[in-house]
Amino acid sequence: MTLYEKDLAYIWHPFTPFSEVGKVIPLEKAEGVYLHTTDGRKILDAISSWWVNLHGHSHPYIAEKIAEQAKKLEHVIFAGFTHQPAVELAEKLIAILPKNQSKIFYSDNGSTACEVAIKMAFQYWYNQGIEKKRIIAFHGAYHGDTFGAMSVGDRGPFNAPFFPYLFEVDFLELPNCNRLDCQINSVERQNCCVKNEAIISQFEALAKTGEVGAFIYEPLMQGAAGMRMYSPAILERLLKIAKEHQIICIVDEVMTGFGRTGKLFASDYCEIKPDIMCLSKGLTGGTMALGVTSCTDEIMEAFKSNDLMKTFFHGHSFTANPLACTAGVASMELLLAEKCQENLKRIEQKQAEFAEKMSQHPKIREVRHLGTITALEIDTEQETGYVNEARSSLYQYFIERDLLLRPLGNVLYVLPPYIISNEELDMIYEEIEKMLEDSQS
Amino acid sequence: MTLYEKDLAYIWHPFTPFSEVGKVIPLEKAEGVYLHTTDGRKILDAISSWWVNLHGHSHPYIAEKIAEQAKKLEHVIFAGFTHQPAVELAEKLIAILPKNQSKIFYSDNGSTACEVAIKMAFQYWYNQGIEKKRIIAFHGAYHGDTFGAMSVGDRGPFNAPFFPYLFEVDFLELPNCNRLDCQINSVERQNCCVKNEAIISQFEALAKTGEVGAFIYEPLMQGAAGMRMYSPAILERLLKIAKEHQIICIVDEVMTGFGRTGKLFASDYCEIKPDIMCLSKGLTGGTMALGVTSCTDEIMEAFKSNDLMKTFFHGHSFTANPLACTAGVASMELLLAEKCQENLKRIEQKQAEFAEKMSQHPKIREVRHLGTITALEIDTEQETGYVNEARSSLYQYFIERDLLLRPLGNVLYVLPPYIISNEELDMIYEEIEKMLEDSQS
Repeated sequence: MTLYEKDLAYIWHPFTPFSEVGKVIPLEKAEGVYLHTTDGRKILDAISSWWVNLHGHSHPYIAEKIAEQAKKLEHVIFAGFTHQPAVELAEKLIAILPKNQSKIFYSDNGSTACEVAIKMAFQYWYNQGIEKKRIIAFHGAYHGDTFGAMSVGDRGPFNAPFFPYLFEVDFLELPNCNRLDCQINSVERQNCCVKNEAIISQFEALAKTGEVGAFIYEPLMQGAAGMRMYSPAILERLLKIAKEHQIICIVDEVMTGFGRTGKLFASDYCEIKPDIMCLSKGLTGGTMALGVTSCTDEIMEAFKSNDLMKTFFHGHSFTANPLACTAGVASMELLLAEKCQENLKRIEQKQAEFAEKMSQHPKIREVRHLGTITALEIDTEQETGYVNEARSSLYQYFIERDLLLRPLGNVLYVLPPYIISNEELDMIYEEIEKMLEDSQS
Repeated sequence: MTLYEKDLAYIWHPFTPFSEVGKVIPLEKAEGVYLHTTDGRKILDAISSWWVNLHGHSHPYIAEKIAEQAKKLEHVIFAGFTHQPAVELAEKLIAILPKNQSKIFYSDNGSTACEVAIKMAFQYWYNQGIEKKRIIAFHGAYHGDTFGAMSVGDRGPFNAPFFPYLFEVDFLELPNCNRLDCQINSVERQNCCVKNEAIISQFEALAKTGEVGAFIYEPLMQGAAGMRMYSPAILERLLKIAKEHQIICIVDEVMTGFGRTGKLFASDYCEIKPDIMCLSKGLTGGTMALGVTSCTDEIMEAFKSNDLMKTFFHGHSFTANPLACTAGVASMELLLAEKCQENLKRIEQKQAEFAEKMSQHPKIREVRHLGTITALEIDTEQETGYVNEARSSLYQYFIERDLLLRPLGNVLYVLPPYIISNEELDMIYEEIEKMLEDSQS
C-alpha cells in the first residue's frame, strides 16, 4: 500500500468532515515556508501550518538543539526534578511576558494550558473559601477541545454533541470593532458604539453580582471564530471593571502570542495586565506540542499552604518535556533576534497595505488586519461563519495552485511564518485577487 | 542565579504540595536507568520517570531518529495533510492492538486521549439521535486532569475544587481482587466474592436502564489510586454485560499499554475487546508527549455522513506531530525486538519473586503484582490512600539513597524501564527491605 492508502486505512484526521476524507496530501518534507509533497509538489504554507510556525519549517538551529537534547536528557518526571531547558525557557518567558507574570506552569498544548488556567482560577477562590464560581467568556470563543476548554468556548457546531456535559458559563457578545482604525488604543474611540457600550454594561452588571471569579478571553481577536477583532480600548475597559470586582483575568494568547499581532503579546496593547496567561502554538516555534500557563505571585499565593488539600493537583506525564522546552528556548532566541524583529515589522507593513487595498474590493464584506495577520470576509450568499460553504471550495481552489490557505468558512486569512519574503507575500496576494476575479466572472 | 534558584523563582511544579516546594533536584543528563544530577549524583529511576520510559533514558536509537526527522519535517497541520511517521506509527499500532481496533486518532497526551475517547462515545450516540447519555466509571479512577478526564475520575483530593464543574458519572466500586492468584482468568474464580458479585449486579442494573452510553475503565489495575488490581475474569463479565446492552467500552491503557502488565496491552488478558482504547506514556518510549485514541470501524461508522454537523470536530495544533510519531515508531521497533521481549519476561519473573517474598512481610498489608509492576501496601497507622503521610517520608528515604521511588500514599511500587538489569532490581529490593527493617526498629 502507498502512504496515501495506508493513511486512508488507518487514520482518523482531526476536524475533517466525511466529505473531505481521502483528500489528504502526503508530505515528504518541509523547508522554510514550503511543504514538499511525496509527488514533488511544493506548497506555500501561508497559514504557518495552522498558526504555529514562526521561523519556517525544519529550522536547522531548532533541529540541532533538539538533536543535542535528545542525546542528553529526553525526559524526566517534573514533580521533584528540574532541568536546564525548562528553567531556561521559563526565565526567557518571564523576561518578555507582562511584568506582573511571575510563575510558569507547563503542560502539553493550548487546550491544557487553558484548562490549567481555569483550574487555577477556580481553586484560587476555593482555597480561600470564597464563593465566586461563575466565569465570563465571549460568544465565538475558542479555547480548545477538551471539556473545560469547550465549556468556555462558543456553544456551536464544534461542541453541540457535548452540551449536556459542559459547565455553565456567562457568555457575552464579542465587542464589534473590526475596522482597521479601531485597533488604536485612543480615548476618542472609547465610546465607539451603542452595541459595545451594552456589552460593557452587561459585563459590569455580572461583575457587580460578586459571584464571578474569572473572565477568559482571546485578546483583540478571536481566531477560530473567523479572525474577529476588537479594540484594545474596549478590552481595557473590561479589564478595569474585572479588576475592580476581583475577577481573575485569564488571557488566551495561544494564537496571538510571540509576535503574531505585531507586539510580542496582544496583551502588550493594554495597560491593564491579565492575572493568568495561556501560551502554546508559537511557543516551540511550531515544532512540537507544549503549553504554558503563567500567573502572578498573587494567584500562587492562594496555594501556599501546609494543608495538602490546597495543592494544585494538576500534571501530565510529559510536563516540561526537555525536548519541547529546548525547542522553545531555540525558538525564543530566533524570535528576539534583530533579523526576526525586522521581519515582523516588514510583514506587518505588507499585510497592512494588502488589507488597505482589499478594503474597497466589491467581493469583500470586511477586511481585518492586526500585526502579521490579514483576514478577508468574502461576500457569499450565505452568512459569515465557520459553516459557510465557501470554506471547502476556497481551500480547494488555492491548494490546487500549491498555496495552503485554510479559510474559516468565508473568512480567508493570511498568517505566514515570519521568514516569508515580500515576493512570496505578493504571490499570495496575487492568487487571492485572481480568485476574486475568477469568482466574479 | 543557579539552576536551582532559577527554578524556585520561575517555576510552578505539577502535583507538588507547598511543603515540597524547594526540594526539587536539578538534573544534568540521563542515561539508561540512571538520572544524573547537576551535583554529580546518579539516581536509579525505578518508576520509569512516572510510568513512561520503556527503553532507558536518552536512548541513542530514538534520539537519532528524532534528530533526522527534525531536519526533514518537524510539523504540519494534520487536517488535510499526512506524513510517514504518523502513518507508520498507526500501521504499527493497528498490527498489535486487539483485532477489532481499526482507526487511530492522534492527540497530545493521556488526558486528551481519554477526552477524545469520551467525546467519540458521546457523539456516536448523538449522531444517531439515540439518548444514551450516562457513563459508568470506577471509584478510584484516574484518567487525567482536564475537565472531561477529571469528570470520569474519582471525586477526591485531586479534583475537589472542581466538583461543581464536572459532569455527572455513575460510579461503581472497583472489584476487589488484589491477591496474586486473582490475576488468572479462571472459571473457578468467577464467583470470587460477594462484594464483587454486588458490583457486577449494580453494573447490570445500570446497563438495563438503557441510558448508559459508555463505560470507561483502567484495565486490571488502577495506577494513581495505588496500583489497585482486579482480575481479568471480573472485567470480562462486566464487558460482556456492556456489550449486551450496547454500552461503548473505553479502555484507558495509558499506563498499562506497551508491555507494562506482561502482555502488550492489559486488554489482551480478556477475550472481549474494548470499542475504544486510550494510549500515551510508553507510546513514545517515554520520550515526549503524544496521545492516541484508537477505535473500531463501528464507532467511526456513526461519523460517516455528508451532514457537516456529524463531523468529529476535535483537534490540537500538534496532532500527529512528526517528531513524536517518529519517537513512537522507534520505540515500537525496540519494544517488539526479541531482546526487549526477553527482558519483559525476565523482569516479570523477578518482580513475581520479589512479590512472593514480600507477601509474608509483617510490615506489608498487601502485595500486588502484575507483569513488570510490583506494589507493596506498607502498614502505617493511617488508612491506605494517596494522602497517607508515609508518601513524603518514603520518597525522601529512598531519594537520599539515590533511588527514585515515588509512593502513592503508603503504596510503594517498582515499575522499571525494560532495560533494567537483575542486579539493579536486586539493589532496589534490598533498599526496600532495608527501609522496612529500619522502620521496624
